[in-house]
Amino acid sequence: MMEFTPAGSLFAPLPSPYTFRDGRSIEGARIAYETWGTLNAQASNAILILTGLSANAHAAATDANPSPGWWEPMIGSGKAIDTDNWFVVCVNSLGSCKGSTGPASMNPDTGTPYRLDFPNLTIEDAADSATHVLEHLGIETAQVVIGASMGGMTALALACDHPHRVRHLIDVSAAATALPFSIAVRSLQREAIRLDPLWDGGNYTDESYPESGMRMARKLGVISYRSAIEWDGRFGRVRLDSDTDDDDPFGMEFAVESYLEGHARRFVRYFDPNSYLFMSRAMDWFERIEDLQRVQLDSALVIGVQTDILFPVQQQEQIAELLASSGAPTQFLSLPSPQGHDAFLVDYDRFIPAVRDYLHRL
Amino acid sequence: MMEFTPAGSLFAPLPSPYTFRDGRSIEGARIAYETWGTLNAQASNAILILTGLSANAHAAATDANPSPGWWEPMIGSGKAIDTDNWFVVCVNSLGSCKGSTGPASMNPDTGTPYRLDFPNLTIEDAADSATHVLEHLGIETAQVVIGASMGGMTALALACDHPHRVRHLIDVSAAATALPFSIAVRSLQREAIRLDPLWDGGNYTDESYPESGMRMARKLGVISYRSAIEWDGRFGRVRLDSDTDDDDPFGMEFAVESYLEGHARRFVRYFDPNSYLFMSRAMDWFERIEDLQRVQLDSALVIGVQTDILFPVQQQEQIAELLASSGAPTQFLSLPSPQGHDAFLVDYDRFIPAVRDYLHRL
Repeated sequence: MMEFTPAGSLFAPLPSPYTFRDGRSIEGARIAYETWGTLNAQASNAILILTGLSANAHAAATDANPSPGWWEPMIGSGKAIDTDNWFVVCVNSLGSCKGSTGPASMNPDTGTPYRLDFPNLTIEDAADSATHVLEHLGIETAQVVIGASMGGMTALALACDHPHRVRHLIDVSAAATALPFSIAVRSLQREAIRLDPLWDGGNYTDESYPESGMRMARKLGVISYRSAIEWDGRFGRVRLDSDTDDDDPFGMEFAVESYLEGHARRFVRYFDPNSYLFMSRAMDWFERIEDLQRVQLDSALVIGVQTDILFPVQQQEQIAELLASSGAPTQFLSLPSPQGHDAFLVDYDRFIPAVRDYLHRL
Repeated sequence: MMEFTPAGSLFAPLPSPYTFRDGRSIEGARIAYETWGTLNAQASNAILILTGLSANAHAAATDANPSPGWWEPMIGSGKAIDTDNWFVVCVNSLGSCKGSTGPASMNPDTGTPYRLDFPNLTIEDAADSATHVLEHLGIETAQVVIGASMGGMTALALACDHPHRVRHLIDVSAAATALPFSIAVRSLQREAIRLDPLWDGGNYTDESYPESGMRMARKLGVISYRSAIEWDGRFGRVRLDSDTDDDDPFGMEFAVESYLEGHARRFVRYFDPNSYLFMSRAMDWFERIEDLQRVQLDSALVIGVQTDILFPVQQQEQIAELLASSGAPTQFLSLPSPQGHDAFLVDYDRFIPAVRDYLHRL
């Protein structure tokens, strides 16, 4: 089975057995994480970063793994998340295939991967498990929890269910509950995987692998993460060198199709299909509107992007309103980035000052 | 092969052989159409309606087919498109499977359906063929041409290439050129069909039919035709009666998933997959920005919807600017309908007055 643990990953063991919200337990589970900066003597300078669906814990370069991380421009000495002051921990989600225990991990009871026998992962399980990483590191309370996309949902669950674990929150492009539109997109992605005969009820192998289904799921993901206006500027109507081929009259013709294909190729064999199904469904199940009115945060920054079609900016506005109604001083930023849901990964001109200024004021 | 010609359809023969823009010809081709109202003696009261990808020519009830049409609230005695004054013609697109000649039609040369041997359909071919329907009916010039979505592209092509055939234009939720985002969505739909082994290079039968591929394509279409905000109001987080089934842990759980499934079921066996491929690709190829600055319209109304993610409202604003630069008095309406690309089929409260007022002023 495929697990894609980045070099230099650290691991925090979860209590064994570890019980999920659905009541089921697994043995010997662990969470992959990485850290930057130094924890102070009071353990009061920790920032916890929770990841989106496909991200690993390698948010920035480390000595053990100097390759750039997925939030490299954001984290480091003198950067917005300044590791001269903060001890930064990034946690790979429970259920992922990037080092934390998930459906692709070996079940010690059977000696085979969990596959569909993995417990019914929820966002709350991911949040619960992240608190054990804090515990493992001797951190009672994260000064700031930061989450984007699915990680932003996890951060909200953590604030709801573990109020003593978090004082301040930066919540990016997330939602207090899954919208039917987003459920529809994710449901279609899951259907693409499940319809691929090579998925085989979750029992695929490296040799017999649901590549078509994963390719469809990823392409649909990439489409939903971006916006029409951004792609117009990036791709226009540029055509590929080899024009329509008589042998494949409906094959790729435009640069944007090749871009999608490239994204799909990089993903298909580097993310476990069953893991994708569990994490995707966990997002559909998320619904914490009521509870967010009763969190106990010291402050919050909520960021949304106006061109996001998957987590529309109205959802972040809703989060901000709910947090404000709880009594937490809350700042809401509606950014005009053209990059849609993915903006936090690319529009650093807007995101760096937003995060830096908020952390600076703490 | 599947053709789905509505009862009561009329047919206009195309010149035989009929030559497409790619230089290839077919014999015995025809266009399906329906009409409402009476053509006046000068043949000067004709409105030509051009259809979107999946629509047939049955835009409203007729004596021959009293079932409601797809634009029923819009067309009839005393309605916005008032058949007491106008002679209304709705044309099924060339390449469709709803009565006009397309890939599912019999090739008289071979006695078998064209399938992938159909000429490389373009939007311009669809526009050209519509002029033969006007000819067939003794109409030199349509007073008004109305098109929405793909039909709106066809209407623009008609205005560019057949200026003497149209005086006034109502162009709805269309584009002067295909955006890379829309190309990406359509490319993924085509890929879903082509990846289905039962598509079999276009050689499927009723018994061995690419149902999975068509289901995926249609669901993706329905998602792209609507908007997140509308679905939130319609479906919220309503769950289906039968909750997650142990036998199918990633099966349908939310009402929105069942809605998509219903749409897919109604479509999959009622639209020819090859026809879908040809029409979808024709939209990708459309690019008439330059030419639209030189049309010779007497006036135009361009309508866009602010929540449309497939044909964003900026594209209709662009059309309006291009038409205005040609010298045609042009009105642009940006509607706040929540229903996205499909709004013209459902938001009659906004669309009826828009169309009625424009026609009234002519």
